[in-house]
Amino acid sequence: MSELSERSGVPVPTVKYYLREGLLPPGEATGATRARYDERHVERLRLIRALVDVAGMSLARVRTVLATVDDDTLALDAAIGSAHTELSPDPATEPSVAAQERVARLVRRHRWRVEAGGRHARALAAALDAMDAAGQPLGDDVLEVYVRAAADIARADLSSMGGLTREGATTYAVLGTLLTEPVLVSLRRMAQESLARRRLSGATTG
Amino acid sequence: MSELSERSGVPVPTVKYYLREGLLPPGEATGATRARYDERHVERLRLIRALVDVAGMSLARVRTVLATVDDDTLALDAAIGSAHTELSPDPATEPSVAAQERVARLVRRHRWRVEAGGRHARALAAALDAMDAAGQPLGDDVLEVYVRAAADIARADLSSMGGLTREGATTYAVLGTLLTEPVLVSLRRMAQESLARRRLSGATTG
Repeated sequence: MSELSERSGVPVPTVKYYLREGLLPPGEATGATRARYDERHVERLRLIRALVDVAGMSLARVRTVLATVDDDTLALDAAIGSAHTELSPDPATEPSVAAQERVARLVRRHRWRVEAGGRHARALAAALDAMDAAGQPLGDDVLEVYVRAAADIARADLSSMGGLTREGATTYAVLGTLLTEPVLVSLRRMAQESLARRRLSGATTG
Repeated sequence: MSELSERSGVPVPTVKYYLREGLLPPGEATGATRARYDERHVERLRLIRALVDVAGMSLARVRTVLATVDDDTLALDAAIGSAHTELSPDPATEPSVAAQERVARLVRRHRWRVEAGGRHARALAAALDAMDAAGQPLGDDVLEVYVRAAADIARADLSSMGGLTREGATTYAVLGTLLTEPVLVSLRRMAQESLARRRLSGATTG
């Protein structure tokens, strides 16, 4: 167990807690106080930590995600959809019909295989509504730049992952998205700050 | 006041609260119980709501951002930097030196005008560390795709905003970034889910 803790970076008491809670399957007993853990245990621990630390999920939600990943009766396509859907909270306010229709058109135009009316689509519609409400509506041309950027990133991520097994695919869909979101958000903030400063450098006094 | 509430979408009791807290400057008194509010009041209310609702900021942090926007003694460049910096929380754990150096090289390579060692840069370094820890390091080639996508988006946003005044520039740097982040994150999740499904459609049973 100390080796498992070392390889996954998760402290021993936390590993024990996950075992008790059934989030981590037990190792193969090799003695009264020893058990063997394999690569799958390390990967599972990393997935749990990313869901807790990066996505800020409660253990209850982590359990739902893991159950989906582990449910062999679900078609892979459905497993990816369900696990991924857990990432987006349902928007606090119902998105407007106009925004939902705008998103549906976008999905059809790009032939994206996502659930119509799914949580990501609803979150997007709510975000577009928020921009309208703030008096800064996002134009269709700018939205298309966002779509292209999102698709470029998804392709680059996927191509860097090689052949995908069932477990690899759900991990890609969940962990890859979660871990790389802070990278994307930070880079975007840096680019934004840099451009605003550059654009205004003639007008600054300092 | 009821007209101000209607135009900004902020309920009257909330407007009164912001006035009492000094987040919103008082209107011009036109009688014992009436005051005149102008376009700046509407914009200020929208900015406050976006910071609270979209960025999830406490009123204390909103106050800091507004003070920066309003501080005429700050050079515009410094005002943008400070206001924008408030968006990124300082990472919980100190990023590794290796990740910080990787980010510094990236900033130099792209000649981005951001503070070296600033919060966005530190948040990015911490995100790269998290990927390493999860056993899914982000390669340089994929990182470059992210950088290009972030820069494309920042340019599209800025070009859609026309001429920028001092207030417009800080609003762009803060509000534009905050409001469009959920759009970007949702689109990226949709693209990711769609690609994972498409890539595996041969292997699905459903």
